[in-house]
Amino acid sequence: MATVALVLGVSLLFGWAPLGAGATSQPPNIVFLLMDDMGWGDLGVFGEPSRETPHLDQMAAEGMLFPNFYTANPLCSPSRAALLTGRLPIRNGFYTTNGHARNAYTPQEIVGGIPDSEFLLPELLKKAGYVNKIVGKWHLGHRPQFHPLKHGFDEWFGSPNCHFGPYDNKAMPNIPVYRNWEMVGRFYEDFPINHKTGEANLTQIYLKEAVDFIKKQQAHQQPFFLYWAIDATHAPVYASKSFLGTSQRGRYGDAVREIDDSIGKILKLLQDLGIKENTFVFFTSDNGAALISAPKEGGSNGPFLCGKQTTFEGGLREPAIAWWPGHIPAGQVSHQLGNVMDLFTTGLSLAGLKPPSDREIDGIDLLPAIVQGKVIDRPIFYYRGNEMMAVRVGQYKAHYWTWSNSWEEFSQGIDFCPGQNVSGVTTHSQEEHTNLPLLFHLGRDPGERFPIRINMSISSKAEFTVPVQNLLLG
Amino acid sequence: MATVALVLGVSLLFGWAPLGAGATSQPPNIVFLLMDDMGWGDLGVFGEPSRETPHLDQMAAEGMLFPNFYTANPLCSPSRAALLTGRLPIRNGFYTTNGHARNAYTPQEIVGGIPDSEFLLPELLKKAGYVNKIVGKWHLGHRPQFHPLKHGFDEWFGSPNCHFGPYDNKAMPNIPVYRNWEMVGRFYEDFPINHKTGEANLTQIYLKEAVDFIKKQQAHQQPFFLYWAIDATHAPVYASKSFLGTSQRGRYGDAVREIDDSIGKILKLLQDLGIKENTFVFFTSDNGAALISAPKEGGSNGPFLCGKQTTFEGGLREPAIAWWPGHIPAGQVSHQLGNVMDLFTTGLSLAGLKPPSDREIDGIDLLPAIVQGKVIDRPIFYYRGNEMMAVRVGQYKAHYWTWSNSWEEFSQGIDFCPGQNVSGVTTHSQEEHTNLPLLFHLGRDPGERFPIRINMSISSKAEFTVPVQNLLLG
Repeated sequence: MATVALVLGVSLLFGWAPLGAGATSQPPNIVFLLMDDMGWGDLGVFGEPSRETPHLDQMAAEGMLFPNFYTANPLCSPSRAALLTGRLPIRNGFYTTNGHARNAYTPQEIVGGIPDSEFLLPELLKKAGYVNKIVGKWHLGHRPQFHPLKHGFDEWFGSPNCHFGPYDNKAMPNIPVYRNWEMVGRFYEDFPINHKTGEANLTQIYLKEAVDFIKKQQAHQQPFFLYWAIDATHAPVYASKSFLGTSQRGRYGDAVREIDDSIGKILKLLQDLGIKENTFVFFTSDNGAALISAPKEGGSNGPFLCGKQTTFEGGLREPAIAWWPGHIPAGQVSHQLGNVMDLFTTGLSLAGLKPPSDREIDGIDLLPAIVQGKVIDRPIFYYRGNEMMAVRVGQYKAHYWTWSNSWEEFSQGIDFCPGQNVSGVTTHSQEEHTNLPLLFHLGRDPGERFPIRINMSISSKAEFTVPVQNLLLG
Repeated sequence: MATVALVLGVSLLFGWAPLGAGATSQPPNIVFLLMDDMGWGDLGVFGEPSRETPHLDQMAAEGMLFPNFYTANPLCSPSRAALLTGRLPIRNGFYTTNGHARNAYTPQEIVGGIPDSEFLLPELLKKAGYVNKIVGKWHLGHRPQFHPLKHGFDEWFGSPNCHFGPYDNKAMPNIPVYRNWEMVGRFYEDFPINHKTGEANLTQIYLKEAVDFIKKQQAHQQPFFLYWAIDATHAPVYASKSFLGTSQRGRYGDAVREIDDSIGKILKLLQDLGIKENTFVFFTSDNGAALISAPKEGGSNGPFLCGKQTTFEGGLREPAIAWWPGHIPAGQVSHQLGNVMDLFTTGLSLAGLKPPSDREIDGIDLLPAIVQGKVIDRPIFYYRGNEMMAVRVGQYKAHYWTWSNSWEEFSQGIDFCPGQNVSGVTTHSQEEHTNLPLLFHLGRDPGERFPIRINMSISSKAEFTVPVQNLLLG
């Protein structure tokens, strides 16, 4: 009952009502701009020293910035599964059983994907009359039963996997590109990516797909959900010819500049069509910058430790901006701890829908934080595969397990924490600290460099860990 | 002649003329807000995750942000000497001769100070009718001949040294506090600083000194120069009672919040008095955050390597904002490479004065960058004591010497690069690389974590080093 009351209350505040309540006004359009391997530190507004994201910075100036926003997993597939289901990967199935604390994902040779039993946001939004489109990377399975149009999307332009390649052989063909049910070509063959020059016009194609969809839906007077999951900042990074060589940061920066420009164009389109006050836009990324690809093909996690694949802040803390003129006052900064899973619940709330009641939902409705400036008390769980490695409660983060990557990988030159070596923290073996978690204050020490030394009695330790476990199981 | 033309040209643009040209209109007031040990990463606008500097962020939104601004030395005394003389410490005498690559400063027991032969900015501004006040830390010598009122300042409220202590003994008395020529008390005795609680109301006193001076000068219709060199962010950090415990970042953050609030009040006063369009304000810091004091008593250098005392970016890259409503368009970001020494030359230019012609001046006039958006080609030299350790040209930085701190200090637990260990870069012995400088691209790799591997021929190496040396000697 509390949930229903909240949904109605918020709906009245925004001047529309859930369709189920018999109202005629339309719920807002929803646009999620999901970046690939972009780091917290890649935006000017989050301190990138070259300041090359004027449109995203402007979006933040007109909306709400979330400096404490997280993903549910530091790797692309489970992160995207969490966003679309509102659930931790250990609940929605996106974890691996063949190794402890190893993240799952769906490369070309994997036969798994998003289970049919999961409700995805677009499936539910359909009940409120939404038309749903995914542009870009799906990454939740490439077999027919996992196709996005079987999971609530009405339209798709993009690929089931990363733009790795070229493979160019029969046993391992290049990654296909789809328009809806139809395979319209393959990367490298029909959609060229030049590794040598870095040139590819994919971001322009993805921009056109977004623009065309928004214009079409606006003409049809139906609410829409656009999931713009582009991938120019994932190695091999790429940019169109007119952006190549324009960044002070090299090719990775060229990709960021083209994305920034494209987002500027999408927001301007919403304004020009007169629907900006009826379109909720949220910008974030799927996981931290891939420092293994840095600096030429990887981004920046700003002041945070390590990157993609790890459960340090650099792995899961994400840039995040909410934009909804007329509803979010300009220039706001929220101290809400947020998570990509919240986009599921918030999306439902915007549509006047309740989350499914037959399963645990980990995402919370962010609208009270976004529209009313509230701060909702909630923990952040840092998973790696099947293992909850760390928990954040308020400004404190407790590591129950630490691990950067294996000695074996490290000795081969693979380093998830290059130039960073916090003794006893960035460990190369999986080290358990459940009896005495490694504690950090993220306000004083955002870089997780100074573990707090505590004299912890059994009782005070119990006070800290028990509520967290209750919440997790709860 | 080129310089004269430029000064006249800029003056006409701003609607005043140098006094020497017989004009009646008054040159703008000048306010330098110089922080102590505040890091690049401590401001919301530079990406501090807690976003607790709304007034400084607003100052940036109304003015011009410099993400590529430097100090001349990573320690307080030589940095301040460089700011006020426009010259590198090796020229103005603020270096030590008793150890290679060791920074000089002026603790209580040192008898040296700023040489009489140096021209300080306030001395020269007097010629244009300015009244000059220093509030806060002088740090250029405490013997009578070094007194700020002997070097161009008309008024002083503050101390000759850091607020270390309490000493409370005859052989080593507490640091004195002066009002002009008169010693009005001592830290701890008359101006309490409570190490246990962190409480001290010094920032409020320094704020009142600034406010009273601005009001008085405004009534007298004389141009003024205010050098507000406060020190709440230097360990032991402090804040007034009403700010203690208000930051998510702990006591250091409390100090930052009080400073941010005070700067908001100073800018508002300029607005309320109707003189904001006739007052040039520049905000920066004397050196990088002191990571040896972090996280409880030290700040953040954002994505940059190491901190105070070192010649990595964390040691010398500074937060910097220029504010001058009506002259600087709002929301600008300049890619100009700037230096605190430029404040000397820019201050003279604002006053319609030329720099002294009988000596080398290392600071450049930033007005073309600030007012016309130009980017002036110039290198940045990273000195440590008598040794030029590194040079930045464009996005490239070449380390000729590397050194974090000695093995001896390091083994005692003193670490200028905590949690950071870039192999072959953060060396604990003084390592020379003059034959093959250690090269970084600061755009792609602001954290100096990925040395560029180059196959350098003798001729290409010569091309890189010769112009730099010419500039230095020239």
